Amino acid sequence: MIQIAIAGSSDENPLEKAERKAREFARELRKYKDKVVLLTGGRGGIMKIVSKEFRKAGGIVIGILPERQEGNEFNTIRIKTGMDFAERSAIMINSADVLVVLGGGIGTMVEALMAYDYGIPLIIVTDTGYASDRLELLAKDDYFDHKRIVKVHFVNNPKDAVKLALEIRKTKKSAEI
Amino acid sequence: MIQIAIAGSSDENPLEKAERKAREFARELRKYKDKVVLLTGGRGGIMKIVSKEFRKAGGIVIGILPERQEGNEFNTIRIKTGMDFAERSAIMINSADVLVVLGGGIGTMVEALMAYDYGIPLIIVTDTGYASDRLELLAKDDYFDHKRIVKVHFVNNPKDAVKLALEIRKTKKSAEI
Amino acid sequence: MIQIAIAGSSDENPLEKAERKAREFARELRKYKDKVVLLTGGRGGIMKIVSKEFRKAGGIVIGILPERQEGNEFNTIRIKTGMDFAERSAIMINSADVLVVLGGGIGTMVEALMAYDYGIPLIIVTDTGYASDRLELLAKDDYFDHKRIVKVHFVNNPKDAVKLALEIRKTKKSAEI
Amino acid sequence: MIQIAIAGSSDENPLEKAERKAREFARELRKYKDKVVLLTGGRGGIMKIVSKEFRKAGGIVIGILPERQEGNEFNTIRIKTGMDFAERSAIMINSADVLVVLGGGIGTMVEALMAYDYGIPLIIVTDTGYASDRLELLAKDDYFDHKRIVKVHFVNNPKDAVKLALEIRKTKKSAEI
Repeated sequence: MIQIAIAGSSDENPLEKAERKAREFARELRKYKDKVVLLTGGRGGIMKIVSKEFRKAGGIVIGILPERQEGNEFNTIRIKTGMDFAERSAIMINSADVLVVLGGGIGTMVEALMAYDYGIPLIIVTDTGYASDRLELLAKDDYFDHKRIVKVHFVNNPKDAVKLALEIRKTKKSAEI
Repeated sequence: MIQIAIAGSSDENPLEKAERKAREFARELRKYKDKVVLLTGGRGGIMKIVSKEFRKAGGIVIGILPERQEGNEFNTIRIKTGMDFAERSAIMINSADVLVVLGGGIGTMVEALMAYDYGIPLIIVTDTGYASDRLELLAKDDYFDHKRIVKVHFVNNPKDAVKLALEIRKTKKSAEI
Repeated sequence: MIQIAIAGSSDENPLEKAERKAREFARELRKYKDKVVLLTGGRGGIMKIVSKEFRKAGGIVIGILPERQEGNEFNTIRIKTGMDFAERSAIMINSADVLVVLGGGIGTMVEALMAYDYGIPLIIVTDTGYASDRLELLAKDDYFDHKRIVKVHFVNNPKDAVKLALEIRKTKKSAEI
Repeated sequence: MIQIAIAGSSDENPLEKAERKAREFARELRKYKDKVVLLTGGRGGIMKIVSKEFRKAGGIVIGILPERQEGNEFNTIRIKTGMDFAERSAIMINSADVLVVLGGGIGTMVEALMAYDYGIPLIIVTDTGYASDRLELLAKDDYFDHKRIVKVHFVNNPKDAVKLALEIRKTKKSAEI
């Protein structure tokens, strides 16, 4: 299975633009529900919106949760890290074959930077209204620093993010069963 | 989904008795593959034997891995913790609705004691030939210490372990989808 | 500096025998306060008793704490792990040049087994009244399992534990300043 | 003790401007060596430069290290987290009363954003030549996101960073000994 992680605001009522883009992303992603597993931080807001759409379509959602929280009800599987929110983010990012950023505040931005730091392919959906839009200012020529670890992809259209995610993801070996 | 975790030796060639009991356990467990998710440390030995049987039957196997290891090829989903083997054990145990110990050395015993410490229902299959059999000496009246956090269940028959696991597991709330 | 970690009950009123042995240990250890740093889980009970004695004598106490707890007031330095109690134990044990077990319940026993698993030299003070005394039953010929990672030293006299700790500790390189 | 953490490049040969500012910072900080403990990621580059100056003056340096690395030789105390570089950063930031960013790439920027996310007072020394200088573009009106968790202080002069750090640090309770 391809492990696609998303990062997004846990605001109970996310900004309208971000919410709309998250839904478009989820509707496109669920076409691939048989070969994709969705990883999220397991909580509310954008995470819950995408998880609901993906799960309703029959997809598997893995919530990587802080402490021993249960998170939102659309998690198929719950990984309870016992750790705080930022530490658990590191586990989600480490586990991702690709990360798609769907708009959010500081937690979302920490996850975006961690992905780059770990060398995880990274796509940032822009024009969401959230602070994560400003990551485009932070990147210089599509890289966050002089080490040029992975190219950061900024896309406006969430459907393009799905297509691109499937193209640039890291591949791993599995048994043919 | 019920998240059943197993602990067992990563020895490449596990002791015969332990291996036989692990297979019996797996064959019984796979009858419940539609409502059970198997959590393991993701690596070789007993973990791989049980994962192979469960996965072949169509079950979902979650490997909770140290560092960014890929682990055995029967992991459906890989959680790469970035952490060392004992720290990643804590994440597996925290995430478990019940832990079944199938015979192993120190890593297995650490996981058994962690489960008790976290209050996770715990079943120890005995007479495997491994050091984990001696946990029965450590327990006094079925509890590891004076805090009597959870009763430790020792069973000889691995099929009984499956039945008991389904009975004593922690329950959690999920959406009906 | 030699980093000596201790494990012991966080019971507010520890068993009398354990408390007496902890005090004897601390009084002996503080003779070495200029070359030893004390690592503890940072909380109450046995940890606090030893920390108080060591700190009063001018020694440095490092508390490795769960979540963002402050722990007891005798911590010179606080490492706030953001993690739960068992996960933070792994960080204390990883950081130890040697672990001395002074009597405790399940948390203490998890730390003892982790030390063996990590290959950290391990001394267990026995006859404390706590469940950790039963670790002697778990060890077979002074090893917890067939991998025989490190010899487990059981000692009755806490002063002997100090002497032995200084002998068997792991050594590491530092600048001469 | 006040726990001041620094973040900076681990480049073996850091940029000249960053190196010069790091030395100025260290020389000012060591005046407070009796009430300040220095926390670093324990490794090379800027971390090593500041640690050397602080340690030579008699200060205590705590290296919060990835895996079981020993790190640079100027660590007085080594916390070996068993975790990867980004996860260990979370432990350093959680433990900090204040974080001073001295110029660096992605790892440094992750630490800066984590501090804001955890609500740890944060000072960023600018004009170092490193990508962390661009964090000023990311901040809007001195906050990284709409939650306005802590004000981000940008300062050009590293001596000012020391003074400011002592002013805005979080305070914690300790025994008077």
